[in-house]
Amino acid sequence: MPSVSNKGKNMPESPIRKLVPYAEKAYKANKTVYHLNIGQPDIKSPEIAMEAVANHNLEILAYTRSEGSQEYREKIANYYKNNNIPVEANNIIVTTGGSEALLFAMGSIADAGDEIIIPEPFYANYNGFATASDVKIVPVISKIENNFALPPISEFEKLITPRTKAILICNPGNPTGYLYSKEEIQTLAKIVKKHDLFLVADEVYREFTYDGYNHYSILEEESLAENGIIIDSVSKRYSMCGARIGYLVSKNKQVIATALKFAQARLSPPTFAQIASEAALQTPQSYFDEVIVEYQDRRNTLVNALKAIPGVQVGEPKGAFYCIVQLPIKNSDAFAQWLLEEFDDKGETIMVAPAAGFYSSPGVGLNQIRIAYVLKKESLVRAVEILKIALQKYKD
Amino acid sequence: MPSVSNKGKNMPESPIRKLVPYAEKAYKANKTVYHLNIGQPDIKSPEIAMEAVANHNLEILAYTRSEGSQEYREKIANYYKNNNIPVEANNIIVTTGGSEALLFAMGSIADAGDEIIIPEPFYANYNGFATASDVKIVPVISKIENNFALPPISEFEKLITPRTKAILICNPGNPTGYLYSKEEIQTLAKIVKKHDLFLVADEVYREFTYDGYNHYSILEEESLAENGIIIDSVSKRYSMCGARIGYLVSKNKQVIATALKFAQARLSPPTFAQIASEAALQTPQSYFDEVIVEYQDRRNTLVNALKAIPGVQVGEPKGAFYCIVQLPIKNSDAFAQWLLEEFDDKGETIMVAPAAGFYSSPGVGLNQIRIAYVLKKESLVRAVEILKIALQKYKD
Ligand SMILES: Cc1ncc(COP(=O)(O)O)c(C=O)c1O
Ligand SMILES: Cc1ncc(COP(=O)(O)O)c(C=O)c1O
Repeated sequence: MPSVSNKGKNMPESPIRKLVPYAEKAYKANKTVYHLNIGQPDIKSPEIAMEAVANHNLEILAYTRSEGSQEYREKIANYYKNNNIPVEANNIIVTTGGSEALLFAMGSIADAGDEIIIPEPFYANYNGFATASDVKIVPVISKIENNFALPPISEFEKLITPRTKAILICNPGNPTGYLYSKEEIQTLAKIVKKHDLFLVADEVYREFTYDGYNHYSILEEESLAENGIIIDSVSKRYSMCGARIGYLVSKNKQVIATALKFAQARLSPPTFAQIASEAALQTPQSYFDEVIVEYQDRRNTLVNALKAIPGVQVGEPKGAFYCIVQLPIKNSDAFAQWLLEEFDDKGETIMVAPAAGFYSSPGVGLNQIRIAYVLKKESLVRAVEILKIALQKYKD
Repeated sequence: MPSVSNKGKNMPESPIRKLVPYAEKAYKANKTVYHLNIGQPDIKSPEIAMEAVANHNLEILAYTRSEGSQEYREKIANYYKNNNIPVEANNIIVTTGGSEALLFAMGSIADAGDEIIIPEPFYANYNGFATASDVKIVPVISKIENNFALPPISEFEKLITPRTKAILICNPGNPTGYLYSKEEIQTLAKIVKKHDLFLVADEVYREFTYDGYNHYSILEEESLAENGIIIDSVSKRYSMCGARIGYLVSKNKQVIATALKFAQARLSPPTFAQIASEAALQTPQSYFDEVIVEYQDRRNTLVNALKAIPGVQVGEPKGAFYCIVQLPIKNSDAFAQWLLEEFDDKGETIMVAPAAGFYSSPGVGLNQIRIAYVLKKESLVRAVEILKIALQKYKD
């Protein structure tokens, strides 16, 4: 019998998938499970987008241009210009989710064996795209004590080798909720310029910043014009995860020409999804304002409730809708499983994402979990109460 | 300035893209261009599929399961069973087009530097997926004189090395239209079993066979249960190229478990497209019957007209909607460009796909073009007339 590739064997499993059988056990035992583990927003998609699809009058569902239509990309460019990011349609490739933009970016800038430095904890699927692309991720540890701020330049410089091709950041961060300051982006600019690297910034949560903080994009930084690559997505912005539309954005012409060849090989991004996403660009500002108020409110409730639990530490999130929570336990994998399999409070329990999957350094983050606040406030309150009771009972 | 990857530099451009600037010149000169170069069918998508999307009542466009929903995959399994292919839902992963299924298949079975043998001429984007996956394509030449039938076993065995992981076929073939016989599939089964290889069969044109011939799938062949991987797609079957839905199908559990990890990394296939594609499974048989009659009629018209041109040879297509045409010229790249840039007959010309892009052996197929018959019969007749006149005038 022929055997699968080593690459395939090394492809990581999602840190949550492992728990799915235990979640199913919990359902079978009729437990109510509060899902703190997922990144699927519960917010409604903009009506204007959903209606555009319902009103479609296509007779042939045809391929679109591999890079997305000229018209759509011009509208995207306008969106960026309104956000202080000076790009044109020809700086943009429409992709099948931010996921595909990440895959195209890695393939366009790194060969087998090349290295990309990423502050950890980081979005777990970066591991998958790196493995698929034969690229080595080199982690630089950011710490909960500092709210996951950018590690010092010296930490990056220690890790740069002749095979280093890029630094990849997520801003604001999944799973940390950390929002890089303008100064931090400028620090990164200095490093990548000095060492001739790309700076890839996953800005899919750009819109979600709280406490009056503004997002500072890498392409607002003029000096990054040739080095910067933005990864973007409609998934979270418009609560349209199922559309599967994202963008790769760069002012580096060679990067765009190269990514375009990857895009041509797979023919086109999904057509209905582009109809929805193009219409979503007309979503009124009030939609976003309401969403931000909602998330900020949830975050406040969640973080305050968590901090009130003895022995619990939270990485204070300023953006996105996640936070890393450090617990007075040894192993959050075992704890997460126990929560589903053995524990309940009045028939209710919680599902959390163990944080080890967000670190690539072995043995780091074992006492941490990631919580996503895509549940209603009442549910969050109850979920944290359950966590508190669980921690009192749990022995590891 | 940081530089793109060698992989990116080596990513092939589509064989048609190069001609686009010349096509634009032709439009500017007000020429009518008959597009014999594209694989986008002009047939209407099934109404039942397009209406399912128009009638959607989603409030949140959410991610679906990475492998597609259980219900949809069960329906797909039924489709296969009705086509003599004994598979279950858990043998199927729903992908973003057949394109993504190809990418997942390569990643799941081959490591950087591994080899996949493919009879050429072959679908040009196999080159792109192979380059993206660091896999080496080893071509085995099939010949127009034999209508592109399977090359003899000895030709395959000459090419098998310790790094060979699979043989990849396209059945029926793009660009050849060749339909492999049951005996040929059994021959391939013997080779892959003997050498412990995978047999990947791109069967996206399965439904399109003519002259009463039946398609014989690799998974109808019981002995291929552990070695066989089918690549499939709704793009051509339902004229729904813009949906971006395909399938990877295998009875090899390790292959499915591995491909699923690639699928999880990119989260989910497009949701609206899955709604359309699930509904498309209910397309009445009459739709396909009409489509087959239409394509067969076009093929007859096209092939007969081509054969009547002195010095022209056609690889007789038994399936799909393409054929390779050998012309009495030296270089079809130059000819295709000349057709757009310099030639017209009463203000009309044609755009064809030079065949060199479908070969990976250098210097082969230079006097060939690929013609797709996704135009109405009258257009095909006129297009071939234009080709005939052009050949009389052309000097290379
Ligand atoms: C940080 C980050 N980047 C990229 C993605 C990919 O999302 P999508 O492919 O839906 O755009 C996600 C999804 O959760 C994410 O959290
Ligand atoms: C032979 C073959 N395989 C795969 C594909 C990919 O199609 P899609 O990604 O639209 O399913 C095509 C498209 O033309 C094709 O001709």
